Amino acid sequence: MKRITLADGTGGEKMMKLIKQYVLKNLNSNAKNIDVGLSDLDDSAVVNGIVFTTDSHTVKPLFFPGGDIGSLAVAGTVNDIAVMGVSPCALSSAFVIEEGFPVDDYEKILLSMKKTSKYAGVPIVTGDTKVVEKNVVEKIIINTSGIGMRSRTLDENIKEVKRYRRFDEKWIKDSNLRDGDKIIVSGSVGNHGIAVLSFREGYGYESEIKSDIKPLNKMIEKILKVGGVVSMKDPTRGGLANTLNEFAEKSKTGIMVDEEKIPIKEGVKSACEMLGIDPLEIGNEGKVVIGVVREKAEEVLKALRKTEEGKNAEIIGEATKNVNGVVMKTVVGGRRIVETPIGDPVPRIC
Amino acid sequence: MKRITLADGTGGEKMMKLIKQYVLKNLNSNAKNIDVGLSDLDDSAVVNGIVFTTDSHTVKPLFFPGGDIGSLAVAGTVNDIAVMGVSPCALSSAFVIEEGFPVDDYEKILLSMKKTSKYAGVPIVTGDTKVVEKNVVEKIIINTSGIGMRSRTLDENIKEVKRYRRFDEKWIKDSNLRDGDKIIVSGSVGNHGIAVLSFREGYGYESEIKSDIKPLNKMIEKILKVGGVVSMKDPTRGGLANTLNEFAEKSKTGIMVDEEKIPIKEGVKSACEMLGIDPLEIGNEGKVVIGVVREKAEEVLKALRKTEEGKNAEIIGEATKNVNGVVMKTVVGGRRIVETPIGDPVPRIC
Repeated sequence: MKRITLADGTGGEKMMKLIKQYVLKNLNSNAKNIDVGLSDLDDSAVVNGIVFTTDSHTVKPLFFPGGDIGSLAVAGTVNDIAVMGVSPCALSSAFVIEEGFPVDDYEKILLSMKKTSKYAGVPIVTGDTKVVEKNVVEKIIINTSGIGMRSRTLDENIKEVKRYRRFDEKWIKDSNLRDGDKIIVSGSVGNHGIAVLSFREGYGYESEIKSDIKPLNKMIEKILKVGGVVSMKDPTRGGLANTLNEFAEKSKTGIMVDEEKIPIKEGVKSACEMLGIDPLEIGNEGKVVIGVVREKAEEVLKALRKTEEGKNAEIIGEATKNVNGVVMKTVVGGRRIVETPIGDPVPRIC
Repeated sequence: MKRITLADGTGGEKMMKLIKQYVLKNLNSNAKNIDVGLSDLDDSAVVNGIVFTTDSHTVKPLFFPGGDIGSLAVAGTVNDIAVMGVSPCALSSAFVIEEGFPVDDYEKILLSMKKTSKYAGVPIVTGDTKVVEKNVVEKIIINTSGIGMRSRTLDENIKEVKRYRRFDEKWIKDSNLRDGDKIIVSGSVGNHGIAVLSFREGYGYESEIKSDIKPLNKMIEKILKVGGVVSMKDPTRGGLANTLNEFAEKSKTGIMVDEEKIPIKEGVKSACEMLGIDPLEIGNEGKVVIGVVREKAEEVLKALRKTEEGKNAEIIGEATKNVNGVVMKTVVGGRRIVETPIGDPVPRIC
């Protein structure tokens, strides 16, 4: 009998295969009111002009340096909406709780959700609570779904794109990159995954490295006001490597990035070296990768760096027909292909 | 240390207490763009005019007579939106799957979701897939969230209400019942809970009793076209007893129902007698309880009975100031108070 394996659910190549083979085959719809649907495999869907997304959170442990399952659930869903270029307007939260779960921890999680929701300015408006017997779930699972609506900021951002090149899209999508667009990352990568992993396994890096969990909707609003943004994605499961490959594949363009420019903290670097993990494959929860028309790249970078969340932003590369897939110019002057992660080097971080 | 118990998650009085004490205290928002929010404790929220709801499904077993976790997840969320009086327009689905789950069962569930989604005419537009280690979840958990939008049918239904009495509400809510409104149930109660329980425990009633899982949006559309509907709720966890008490409490009115009129199948009756369960406390997945202005009750009933899902509909009682809470005229001529279930007589049915 064929069985689902851990690798099938990691955000990498194997998961894409599972989703294409089973989920899309059965559930995809081409209804006319769906602007962005299942088969776009983007961060959110767009139906009747409403941006709509969902995520179930199974992070282990529940509390870790820099965050917990509550802040993760709220920020993760806010960010999946915000990267579509729209304002998140409401969240749902559905809890599945194991019988015997400490009420104190439950309240700590709710407080953290409250705080994160206030910071983002996005209320939780509906919910569901199920309590199940021992061992039916490990402690607690939280699903957050969310909706967002188009604002004038997005229209103005697109108008600005059109000043520089042809652009027929209504939404910020992974597939919108074109030759010459610049790629920006809003800050250092790898922090979240390493913080959770190190804390869980007792490696000791967590004194130095904390999760970057943060709702990014306000930061994103600021860069959309500058204009020229065509694609955005938060590099969660599968990390920067996965995001760049999704951009390249869906946009049918190559991407060239410069290793020297990719911000990675020293602590993350040494943890990755010790553990034999590629920092580009590690999930983040407070970063965004941005595709922007060349002419606006410096201006967007400047706006990002003025924000707390984006102060370490860098232009790391560009879309180019000169390469196939994602290629990185290494620090020592060579070139290496950045592949879509097959599995997940750091499981259960979201 | 205080711990969460099974009874805290059952849809009854204890769950309401947990939600009020912890969820509402931390997460409730009074933002102006929220027409129906967390504190309304209704089936869905309404924010910026969009109806939004969520449910996580932990039913055991995954496959049972009349349905499975897939049809349940789709129909349940469609119904939570439809009972707000609006058209469901899209669903999300988020899977948490235990490593080793058979691919055949996974595909069977997806096929069932596809079939139910097609029947309802509501596409699944966005999703999430997480695979976790053995024993982190029992087999599979599915969250479905959904959105719906106001249609002219709802406006016309409300116009019809206003022909007969004062009505200042924009939405179909649990709190809209007034003295004299009639209560209709769309068919026999208790089938879903008894079918799942009996199959799970091997009681043998499932040959006779099948789950009533069904998306009700098309049936509801038909009765809204008749007009005069003020409140609707699908009596899932906590059953008819819970729904009637929620109506009464939120609407600040008494409700009087007639036992003789409540449709219950013989097989459900005998199972309930043997198991010592009140059929009014058992969850349903294809029924709706409707509050309608007196003058339109017969017409709504007639429209219901013309549909396959509503062919056994009955007017079971009315809202009345003459009683406190929910009171039932029994078959033998007495009166008994129908209380909000404290716990859940049949756990893990949704």
